[in-house]
Amino acid sequence: MKQNNQNWKLKLHEIIYEADTPAGKLFDVALLILILISVLVVMLESVEPLQNAYGFYFNFIEWIITILFTIEYILRVITVKSPLKYILSWYGIIDLIATLPKYIGLFVTRTEALLVLRSLRLLRVFTILKLARYVGASNDLIKAIKASKAKIGVFIFAVLILSMLLGTAMYLIEGNTDSGFTSIPRSIYWAIVTMTTVGYGDIAPATALGQFFASLVMIMGYGIIAVPTGIVTSEFTHAKRTTTNTQTCTNCSKSNHKDNANFCYHCGDKL
Amino acid sequence: MKQNNQNWKLKLHEIIYEADTPAGKLFDVALLILILISVLVVMLESVEPLQNAYGFYFNFIEWIITILFTIEYILRVITVKSPLKYILSWYGIIDLIATLPKYIGLFVTRTEALLVLRSLRLLRVFTILKLARYVGASNDLIKAIKASKAKIGVFIFAVLILSMLLGTAMYLIEGNTDSGFTSIPRSIYWAIVTMTTVGYGDIAPATALGQFFASLVMIMGYGIIAVPTGIVTSEFTHAKRTTTNTQTCTNCSKSNHKDNANFCYHCGDKL
Amino acid sequence: MKQNNQNWKLKLHEIIYEADTPAGKLFDVALLILILISVLVVMLESVEPLQNAYGFYFNFIEWIITILFTIEYILRVITVKSPLKYILSWYGIIDLIATLPKYIGLFVTRTEALLVLRSLRLLRVFTILKLARYVGASNDLIKAIKASKAKIGVFIFAVLILSMLLGTAMYLIEGNTDSGFTSIPRSIYWAIVTMTTVGYGDIAPATALGQFFASLVMIMGYGIIAVPTGIVTSEFTHAKRTTTNTQTCTNCSKSNHKDNANFCYHCGDKL
Amino acid sequence: MKQNNQNWKLKLHEIIYEADTPAGKLFDVALLILILISVLVVMLESVEPLQNAYGFYFNFIEWIITILFTIEYILRVITVKSPLKYILSWYGIIDLIATLPKYIGLFVTRTEALLVLRSLRLLRVFTILKLARYVGASNDLIKAIKASKAKIGVFIFAVLILSMLLGTAMYLIEGNTDSGFTSIPRSIYWAIVTMTTVGYGDIAPATALGQFFASLVMIMGYGIIAVPTGIVTSEFTHAKRTTTNTQTCTNCSKSNHKDNANFCYHCGDKL
Repeated sequence: MKQNNQNWKLKLHEIIYEADTPAGKLFDVALLILILISVLVVMLESVEPLQNAYGFYFNFIEWIITILFTIEYILRVITVKSPLKYILSWYGIIDLIATLPKYIGLFVTRTEALLVLRSLRLLRVFTILKLARYVGASNDLIKAIKASKAKIGVFIFAVLILSMLLGTAMYLIEGNTDSGFTSIPRSIYWAIVTMTTVGYGDIAPATALGQFFASLVMIMGYGIIAVPTGIVTSEFTHAKRTTTNTQTCTNCSKSNHKDNANFCYHCGDKL
Repeated sequence: MKQNNQNWKLKLHEIIYEADTPAGKLFDVALLILILISVLVVMLESVEPLQNAYGFYFNFIEWIITILFTIEYILRVITVKSPLKYILSWYGIIDLIATLPKYIGLFVTRTEALLVLRSLRLLRVFTILKLARYVGASNDLIKAIKASKAKIGVFIFAVLILSMLLGTAMYLIEGNTDSGFTSIPRSIYWAIVTMTTVGYGDIAPATALGQFFASLVMIMGYGIIAVPTGIVTSEFTHAKRTTTNTQTCTNCSKSNHKDNANFCYHCGDKL
Repeated sequence: MKQNNQNWKLKLHEIIYEADTPAGKLFDVALLILILISVLVVMLESVEPLQNAYGFYFNFIEWIITILFTIEYILRVITVKSPLKYILSWYGIIDLIATLPKYIGLFVTRTEALLVLRSLRLLRVFTILKLARYVGASNDLIKAIKASKAKIGVFIFAVLILSMLLGTAMYLIEGNTDSGFTSIPRSIYWAIVTMTTVGYGDIAPATALGQFFASLVMIMGYGIIAVPTGIVTSEFTHAKRTTTNTQTCTNCSKSNHKDNANFCYHCGDKL
Repeated sequence: MKQNNQNWKLKLHEIIYEADTPAGKLFDVALLILILISVLVVMLESVEPLQNAYGFYFNFIEWIITILFTIEYILRVITVKSPLKYILSWYGIIDLIATLPKYIGLFVTRTEALLVLRSLRLLRVFTILKLARYVGASNDLIKAIKASKAKIGVFIFAVLILSMLLGTAMYLIEGNTDSGFTSIPRSIYWAIVTMTTVGYGDIAPATALGQFFASLVMIMGYGIIAVPTGIVTSEFTHAKRTTTNTQTCTNCSKSNHKDNANFCYHCGDKL
């Protein structure tokens, strides 16, 4: 009887946590659809006319989804080896956060603050990424981004410092006009808007000197955009170059040999 | 008599479907000019003052073009080996769609919906791309884009998820002000406008917290733009490297020779 | 006497057309300064308050510059081997265009149309580029851009076709609202503004469907920007790779060998 | 007694100028925090409501920081080998500039002009960059940017020339309308805003011809952005390739070995 119970747990674990079996895939797809519906309803609820017209149905769908998420959460806790580890894990917390708001909503009337919690549910969509065909691509992506992390950190730091200096300078130039540079933080906001080439136009220089200075900032930003691109691209190219070698040494089974290598770089054995 | 008829069909087929003979080239160029005039007229018709002044001429030109397109369509159906296959093909459908609107217009008064159908005619312009000198370039382009497809898919997916999270967060921050973040979908629209560095400024943060958060989104988008660039560039570089060298040394079977190499760079053997 | 005259011509030719001698360099720098002043004056004249206050001085400076340019033009014609070839050359025409406006201005009162002619004078600034230290850099630049020409042509063509389709679609979606999509050409203008991530915001979608569609256009444009970057970068990398080889064959004096070449690719001699 | 004094100086020098000892690191971190607080206060002071409410506290904090910076400056002058060299160095001037404003403020009432001087203090933040783990990344960055300097110079020069030509042309097209092209300098400002894809929308073409021309400028700018990216990327890729391989085989003198290679990939000899 006990083994039967264990068996039942194992099977459920396979369905819920893995995507190799047909049932597991079905579960993943069903969960994805549920998540997307949940997200869609949250979004549509925020549109006032729709909320006024279909508010009842939105509420109804949300309760169904919440109950299904509750069942999923309980099953996950039951079937996993170490429940506490799951509950305190990243996904465990997100699962809980995605389930709770509706129940809390029974007691709290101001549910607006919970919207953001629910939107975190979206992060679970990434689990579906584990499915087969995207793995290669995303692995390369993650590798390149990880390798560029330190460089991009320095870059963003430099951009921030530059924004502060340029923003402060612009505050001095345009601070007394009506063009919106009312304080240094706002001027820094403008500098970031300009340097990243976003350019809302909510704050724009009005004086000749301000426009001249802004032109310099733009050309600077235009040149600077090349830096992160250069970093990531060179990492991608590098990752590509080193991963295209599929040869493996027959002696020490090291891979990643150079394309035109005659001998293993690790043990010196002829390839 | 039958063979003569067959011969006549073959010649027409050569003129219409191929671009190697002078007549075929002439046909392609004539068709291109017709398409461009057709497109131009459709565009100018949408400009009210022009339509009021020259509406009659536009209509006249359109009828001439429609009749020519009809003749072309009939000839294509007649001369092709398997007419049904052509009619149901991508180009066959576009050809039909480009011809019908004017005839349907005789019965329907509200032709606005047909404009988009006609604009599909534009896709046929790509047929002219088959002409000689762009082939190499476009082949490389298509190869690089195809190779990057999976990675770019993951990337766009990640951008969308990020836009949802950031848009929802911004809705919480600026939702109660007059700055235009009236609903989550609109906030997501803002997030996409900002992350892609388009920055219309129709919706822009007004509070200090909102501007601070927007700055983060911008810098994020500024960094993210490097990713698709990196993907495509590394594919281009890769495609370039592998396509410029196809020669292999007959002595040592080394490849990757320079384009204008006469001797193997490794063993000195004549290539 | 004749030889002396010839000698005098040769010396002047050296000063005017070459930048190797101190006098030639001085002439180039003086010319550059004259051009910059000329351009500056043209610009400042267009600023109404400045024109009202300093119009007399602007006119005075312009006459001096025009006279100096006239002398330069005459000297160029005299000292060059084949005067007609110079007069009909690119620089010859620009030189003439830069000199004439002021004289024509004596007879014509509406000089506005001449502004653009004068601005062409700016192109002569590129002559200064011939000076030593930028040559290497600009040569590489020109090489990479020339090599990418066909690909960039296809790319711009594709962007234009796409803009037409997207603009027409947007006209159908937003044509009846007040958001500015009043005609197909304007909608195409919007599509280009959006796809290139410029985003003025003078025309922006107002309906939910329009904003959804615009989001797609933006993400598309965001991905498309990677293509020209990829093209140029791979050309740059390629140009760099092939030019970094400084080895020269001792037998046939060919350079540009592969980095790991043991034998000359041209004559098969051992390197 | 003298040696003791010297010893004391050496220790202080180690703490202030180096970051290898715990005390030196602590000093750097404390200085960084002071700088950040100083910058933050300067920024918040520019926000009028905050200045009105907490002006007294801001002033108090600033005096403390100024006194601490004064002590730091004096210690730096005392402990350094050649005080004059430090005082006239880049950092020496910045240190002085960061300290003086508050004292000058005692005599001058209009301290606004001093804000920019203080913002220069931010540049000292870069000293913290000398700390260990960012060195590799920033060295690569600086190397790539230095190598691209000449090319980027030519590029920016070309962009400026192009902006002048395009701005002047646009002034001719839109100069008589109300769309904001009131003078050539403003039109050039517009051209830079557009070519860098910033696109504020404060000045935007209103006529059909102007919009057509602007579209050309945008597509041009879109293509041009690829150039600096290509330059920096190819430098990065080059730097990456050459810096990861410095080892040379003692047997066959092949270089470009993998970082973790134990044996030459060409001849199998131990490295």
